[in-house]
Parts: sequence; C-alpha cells; structure tokens
Amino acid sequence: MSPAPQTVSDHIFSETVSSQNRGLLYGDGLFETIRFRSGQLLLWEPHRQRLLSGCDALGIDLDHAYLDSLIPEIIASAPSTDCILKVIVTRGTGGRGYSPPSPNRPTVLFQWHALAADIINNTRMGIDVIFCRHPLSVNPVTAGIKHLNRLDQVLASRELSACAVHTPTVREGLMLDVDSNLIEGTRSNVFVVIQNQLCTPELTRCGVDGVMRNRLIELFASQGVEVVVRAIRHRELTQGSEAFLCNSVFGVWPILRLIDVHAGEEPHEFRATTMARMAQQWLRDDFPL
Amino acid sequence: MSPAPQTVSDHIFSETVSSQNRGLLYGDGLFETIRFRSGQLLLWEPHRQRLLSGCDALGIDLDHAYLDSLIPEIIASAPSTDCILKVIVTRGTGGRGYSPPSPNRPTVLFQWHALAADIINNTRMGIDVIFCRHPLSVNPVTAGIKHLNRLDQVLASRELSACAVHTPTVREGLMLDVDSNLIEGTRSNVFVVIQNQLCTPELTRCGVDGVMRNRLIELFASQGVEVVVRAIRHRELTQGSEAFLCNSVFGVWPILRLIDVHAGEEPHEFRATTMARMAQQWLRDDFPL
Repeated sequence: MSPAPQTVSDHIFSETVSSQNRGLLYGDGLFETIRFRSGQLLLWEPHRQRLLSGCDALGIDLDHAYLDSLIPEIIASAPSTDCILKVIVTRGTGGRGYSPPSPNRPTVLFQWHALAADIINNTRMGIDVIFCRHPLSVNPVTAGIKHLNRLDQVLASRELSACAVHTPTVREGLMLDVDSNLIEGTRSNVFVVIQNQLCTPELTRCGVDGVMRNRLIELFASQGVEVVVRAIRHRELTQGSEAFLCNSVFGVWPILRLIDVHAGEEPHEFRATTMARMAQQWLRDDFPL
Repeated sequence: MSPAPQTVSDHIFSETVSSQNRGLLYGDGLFETIRFRSGQLLLWEPHRQRLLSGCDALGIDLDHAYLDSLIPEIIASAPSTDCILKVIVTRGTGGRGYSPPSPNRPTVLFQWHALAADIINNTRMGIDVIFCRHPLSVNPVTAGIKHLNRLDQVLASRELSACAVHTPTVREGLMLDVDSNLIEGTRSNVFVVIQNQLCTPELTRCGVDGVMRNRLIELFASQGVEVVVRAIRHRELTQGSEAFLCNSVFGVWPILRLIDVHAGEEPHEFRATTMARMAQQWLRDDFPL
C-alpha cells in the first residue's frame, strides 16, 4: 500500500530537504551509488533490487513503479557520459518521534557526482590499504542493508584521510567488526586469496551486501572459481597472497600492501594480482582499464 | 580550531537543510532533546556537556562559545511555557564521500516540539512495556553517544506502535543488544530492582548515556541508595520487583507490566513503585506529578 508520490519536481533533484526529514533526524533511509557510463546505469537491476528489498526490510513504502518511471528522466539529465548517480530514499517526514507514520511517503533524491580523478590510476597500479581502528557496529538484522546510518564509515574515513596525508598510496581503509573479523573497506568490499582459496567475508553481522561483490562471485563461479564466503579473522589477511577491493563505481582495485599503521609492523605485501586482473578483464567494457 | 559559524539566521530555525548535508547523507551528527519549562531549559548543563563531548568524539568542530551565544535567543523563541527543544548538530556539508572536510563547518538546528498528551498520565499511572525484537547494534566506540544513527530505534518503535494498537497501555519498548542484554527503552533509560538492588544496564557496548539516567544515579546516591550499573540479562527482568523508565522529557515513568508479546508468556507484573515514586518526588518541581 503505497501513498501517492509527490510530483517529481518536488523531489528528485531538490537541493534541500525538510529539516523534519527522517533521513536527517534518524538516518531513516537507504541509498545506492551507481556508475553511469555511455548512457547506461551500470548494474542498475541489482541496485534497484537492493534498494527495493531494503525498503521492504525497513518498511519504507516506496512504490516500485514510481521509481521505475523516474529513470528515463534521470538518465536524460546526466551531466556527462561517465559519472556517478546517487539515489537516496528516506521515509520522508512525519511520525511521532522515532515511530514512523504508516503508511509513509518516502523522499526520493537523485544526485549526480563526478568520478574521482584517481580511479583509472588505482585500477591500473593498485593501492595500499590500512586497517582502520574504528570498528563496524554489529547487528544481524540490518547487516547487508545499504542504509543511511553510516557514522562508522565516516569515522573510519577520518583515519584513512589522516593516514593518506603522509602515505598517499593508501587509498582505502579496511574495517573490522567489533570482534576483529575482516568485513569490508570503508566504501568497498574485499576479496582475499588465502591458501589458494579466493575468499570474501561473510556479511551476516555487519557490512554492505555489495552489488559488485555479488557480480564478482557470479563471474568467478561462471569461470569455475568458487568464492568462499566465510568469517575471516583480521590476522588471516597477512597470510594472503593476493587481495583486492571492489565496488560498483570503480570496479576492481588490486591491493599491493597492507600497512598496519597501528601495530607498527612491516607492511604485508600481496605479490599476486592474478584474480584481480582476471576480474578487471571481465568488466573492462564497463569499467575501463 | 573552529571555522566561523554561519550567521544565525541561516541556521538555527531553518525549515530545510541542504540535500548534501552530512546529517542526511550519513547520520553524521548528534542531537539533544530537552524539556523547556517556566523559562528554563531543564538540565541544560549536562545536555550541553554531552553535546560538546559528542562533537569531540566525532571530530565535529562545534564552537562552544557560538553554541552558548545562541541560547538566550532560543529561549526567547519558545512557543509555550512547557515544551521540548530539540538541538541537532551535524558536520555540515562537504568532504569527499564518507571522508569529512577538515575543519568542518557544523550545521546547528533548533526545533521546538509540543509535549505528548500522555506524559502526566503515564507519570501517575505507570505504563506497560514490551521487549522489542529489533536489537541494538553493538559498538563500544560509539556507545553512549547520542548520534543521528537511530535506525535501530526507528525499527523498534515500529514494533511498539504495532503492539500499542491492540494494547494501548503499552507506551514503551525495551531494547536488548545482539547478545540479549537489556540496554534501554527506545527513547528512555531503564532501572530495575533485582533482589533489593537498584540496577541499571551498563552502556559500554551500546545505548545512550542518558542525562536523566545520570541525574537519577546522583540523586539516589545522595539519598544513600547505590545504583548498581552492570550487564543485565533480559531474563533477569522477570525477577524484578520494580522497574521504571526515565528520560529528560518525561522524568520518571513506573513500569507496571512487562508484556512479552513474542514469547507468548503471561505478563510479568512489577508490584512495587517505591523507587520510582521517590525519584518523582525529588524531580517534582521540574517534572510535575
């Protein structure tokens, strides 16, 4: 039961939202970040599916047909042939304190962003990473959902920025959960080759169920490489022969070194990039090399 | 190092915020909810302290003197002699993705709200509570901070609203952490008398470090009653002889019954209200009975 949406012009490219918007008050909403290239929203269908299933999980009454009806207009508004579309859906305004109105009238926002200048270089050359000290909050119920409660990522990114000042090769920070399991990067998912097995952390207690992560699991499987999804202790990373990051904006970045700035140990070098280079080849039409 | 604040008129009663505000994008901010009564912001000093120490913890560059300078104007704008002031501080706009700008220029918003109609009645008569199924996320680093990542409270409040439809005496939901420890209510802290000890949950892994909770711990101590702050398993609640909720808007509400809607058991009745009534007496000048 979805309420009638407001007119498109109220919503979708608005430069402001109400200061009563529940996205602001409580982080009561979801978002997607999508690469736009050559007239297409890359991997739009899985992004759409994740957004809609996130709305179902949180009880946000986003009308599917309404969302779909906006897409041609959104695509027509793209500021360049290669950029990023951010879609934000909040539960709108209203309710009494935390308690949401029912039914609710979601706010839908679209925002275009430019690509960061370092994407191609990092794709080609690989990057260094650190472990962030700030841990990911654990909650099995909201794990996987790309909701707007992203303070953990903000606080971890502060560490990353501080580190990148003196070590500019560091382009991403790895995040652990409160029990020191490796989960993901601040804005990416992570894969590691440990004892010849390609592994990626399970996301049953925290982490974002990444669209590119799932695409890579499928692609590797279709090529006969099983990705093992399991709990990975943070110390296991230093046994890895290869590691790489992915998201649906930059594709795949090989990790060259893990710089454990806090433990004061020597960096761990990942000598192989075989899996990452294979994945980049499969994706090269959409994510140029 | 605090940047110059924007002019007051840009900020403080704005009906909108930028759709690039980091409060909306990431829940990157804090809030306080304060009772205003007879010309005074009740317990303003501990609210102010919590807000400033929260800003320090998150690295939000809120200028203390700027915040203080706004208060007379805020008080002068109060719409009635008994209402609620909400203060929201976000990290403002800017930065690159999750990574915040440094220094940052915070957004400060003030919002007046009316008191809910049931406050006095619940204070006098007490209320029933449920256990919410939705668990609180665990993160020792952000535990205690009243930040804007409140999706857990929103999802728990949906359960509460659904329950209150058929059981209107249920006015609050108790929340457990992911390991089934009792932590707090959706918008309150909780005290329980177990084996003649007045206890309240420790908030080292999640929960909000409530201003009224701390005030009550002080008040009880000053009257020779030690409040034991410890982990409380959810099952211990049914051994309690008394329980009550508190926050800095409503003061103290006795809990009459715990209705365990999910387990299908008989409600647990709290027969005593002695401690709650004592606390209400101490607070009666500010939180009328």
